[in-house]
Amino acid sequence: MNREFSLDRIIKTLKMVLPGGQEYIALHEPFFNGNEWTYVKKCLDSGWVSSSGEYVSLFEKQLEEYTGVKYAIAVVNGSAALHICLLILGVSAGDEVLIPAMTFIATANAVSYCGAIPHFVDCEARTLGLNPFKLEKYLDEIAQIRTEGCFNKITGRRIKAVVPMHTFGQPVDMDPLLEVCQKYSLEIIEDAAESLGSYYKGQHTGRLGQAAILSFNGNKIITTGGGGAILTNNESLASLARHITTQAKLPHPWSFHHDMQGFNYRMPNINAALGCAQMEQLPGFIEQKRELARRYQEAFAEVFGVEIFQEDAFAHSNYWLNVLLLDEEYSVQRDKLLELTNSQGIMTRPAWTLMPQLPMFQHCPHMDLRGAESLERRIINVPSSVGMTRGRFFCQENS
Amino acid sequence: MNREFSLDRIIKTLKMVLPGGQEYIALHEPFFNGNEWTYVKKCLDSGWVSSSGEYVSLFEKQLEEYTGVKYAIAVVNGSAALHICLLILGVSAGDEVLIPAMTFIATANAVSYCGAIPHFVDCEARTLGLNPFKLEKYLDEIAQIRTEGCFNKITGRRIKAVVPMHTFGQPVDMDPLLEVCQKYSLEIIEDAAESLGSYYKGQHTGRLGQAAILSFNGNKIITTGGGGAILTNNESLASLARHITTQAKLPHPWSFHHDMQGFNYRMPNINAALGCAQMEQLPGFIEQKRELARRYQEAFAEVFGVEIFQEDAFAHSNYWLNVLLLDEEYSVQRDKLLELTNSQGIMTRPAWTLMPQLPMFQHCPHMDLRGAESLERRIINVPSSVGMTRGRFFCQENS
Repeated sequence: MNREFSLDRIIKTLKMVLPGGQEYIALHEPFFNGNEWTYVKKCLDSGWVSSSGEYVSLFEKQLEEYTGVKYAIAVVNGSAALHICLLILGVSAGDEVLIPAMTFIATANAVSYCGAIPHFVDCEARTLGLNPFKLEKYLDEIAQIRTEGCFNKITGRRIKAVVPMHTFGQPVDMDPLLEVCQKYSLEIIEDAAESLGSYYKGQHTGRLGQAAILSFNGNKIITTGGGGAILTNNESLASLARHITTQAKLPHPWSFHHDMQGFNYRMPNINAALGCAQMEQLPGFIEQKRELARRYQEAFAEVFGVEIFQEDAFAHSNYWLNVLLLDEEYSVQRDKLLELTNSQGIMTRPAWTLMPQLPMFQHCPHMDLRGAESLERRIINVPSSVGMTRGRFFCQENS
Repeated sequence: MNREFSLDRIIKTLKMVLPGGQEYIALHEPFFNGNEWTYVKKCLDSGWVSSSGEYVSLFEKQLEEYTGVKYAIAVVNGSAALHICLLILGVSAGDEVLIPAMTFIATANAVSYCGAIPHFVDCEARTLGLNPFKLEKYLDEIAQIRTEGCFNKITGRRIKAVVPMHTFGQPVDMDPLLEVCQKYSLEIIEDAAESLGSYYKGQHTGRLGQAAILSFNGNKIITTGGGGAILTNNESLASLARHITTQAKLPHPWSFHHDMQGFNYRMPNINAALGCAQMEQLPGFIEQKRELARRYQEAFAEVFGVEIFQEDAFAHSNYWLNVLLLDEEYSVQRDKLLELTNSQGIMTRPAWTLMPQLPMFQHCPHMDLRGAESLERRIINVPSSVGMTRGRFFCQENS
């Protein structure tokens, strides 16, 4: 290995993996190569484009079968799904909810929507997600179990739940987290927005907490335009979620009666039609994405100063977004690399600005965040679309 | 006129207007007879199905041109649009917002989402909407202007805004309402969810307040599956709405920075594609709906004990849902009529349960609600789909 750090070499290596002949390579593009048109057209022809409709039920059934979670409730997006999960699990105004410092803003905002306060937890390089061991040590210091639940001794507020987020599709180490949560009576809501198709010790992400969410935004592994889902194995939580997401309207052929505060969060049928077609292709998408990850790993194996993130032994990841990790000492080069790649038509991005650095969350409680801070300095996401490998496969077949 | 009240005669008269040969006649079905499939297919082919995409911009431009309001921001639904309008106009936790007692739950829920308290206003038979004259008298009694705005002398809370809702497409009498709001420094947010295509004194509903909302749910005059829009003539309010509805992310080619609490509320491109096709047909839809209203009015002119609601001289209504109004003395027959029609495959419905009768709003302040109470007892919505008259037109042409 040439032991000299070179941005030029990194970019050349990227280009070896990326498909040639394209002026611009997106970070993640949707891939429509199945029954998308057929189902969307059927949906239009039926006239049922809105929240009642057979594709919504079918899509939910597909999600249930694929993830092995008993109940899936399709909603307008992942943010809405998170909001409802927090509500149905009893997160109230003034509660604290533990979430990773490095996550998309939706995780933190959903906590705020409930009037609750995000409390930021450190992340680990092994999974890119919440560090359960550090969390336990931290709770040993600051938390106290009372009859009404777990309380933060410093702020005096109740700590109600933890939201592990499976970053870029990489599963959080759930077993030790489950132990911590049992010890401290905390509910777990898995933010599986990015991890449809990712498994932890053979279980699909989203199966291990009390509830979980998925996202089908345009940049996700499958898309419904905009969309999300709530997952839970608990029948009464599922019923409650269904009720709250349809404005809490009581079923009746004509009367309008609502028995609690609700939301207009259900997924329209036309979006679900798209989802049904996408779900049929998901196993193929995963194969392609894992193949792309393998190619990145192979290509960068001998490149000095960087590595491509690889799943842990307990994980089987969808590799939603591949992660190029700069060695800590070269993290000062991150922005330069972002500039060079983006200016050459290769879309790359850093991790999200850490939540406690944003103005609306800077006064929220947090533990020592050295792990997340280091990851945030070092992460660069590289193009990871499904179509990318497929294109290359075709090229190879044709040549 | 036969001066005897007869449910049988009412149903026979309904059937004279309704298209024959159908087992079930919905209250309001969507009508796709334009470029829906072409645009949705183009959208799928482009790969841009999510929130960034040309159909979103095009749909917004169509709405701006049609309504004459300067800025339209397409969002996931009318509830989200209301939530954002309240926020951008400065409604804060603990404020009161005046809304009609007779409205869909979304109006009241949106107020709750802001932590504010709905304060219920009476409605008038002339418009089916908020009664501005009664509101003025009421505010003269309970309201007080201070330097920080209008305050409720009884609750001590600030009254920040009024949300007139143009019920079933019928415009509220806006001129006297504008006067009251000026007198009491109240913001006006028009809930025009049902009134796309309805005009007040030649101005499209939604042009007269500081902001307004539209809905494109499956049962509305045009549909995007699920969808809504924020309307405002104020550039800075429009920018703020756009910012908040996209998770308050600051524009940057790769960096993720957010400067305030935001929401994931933007309309996906695939839904906007549907909306663009629907907007092209809107003028025709309005013609057909006004023709249907005319037929109902004609058919029921000589039927004793009921009337079909007719727009006021200041209004040009889209007649989204036609309203059969029972005379007060026959309002006890309402549920019987609902039962009979629905059991015969003619979908009808009453007005919404009045908001202060719902458990979550029963402790909220309200004025005397005699007008709304009477309307709620007397209203029955009758089938009003666009396709209905069209079907009949075709039959006549073919016969």
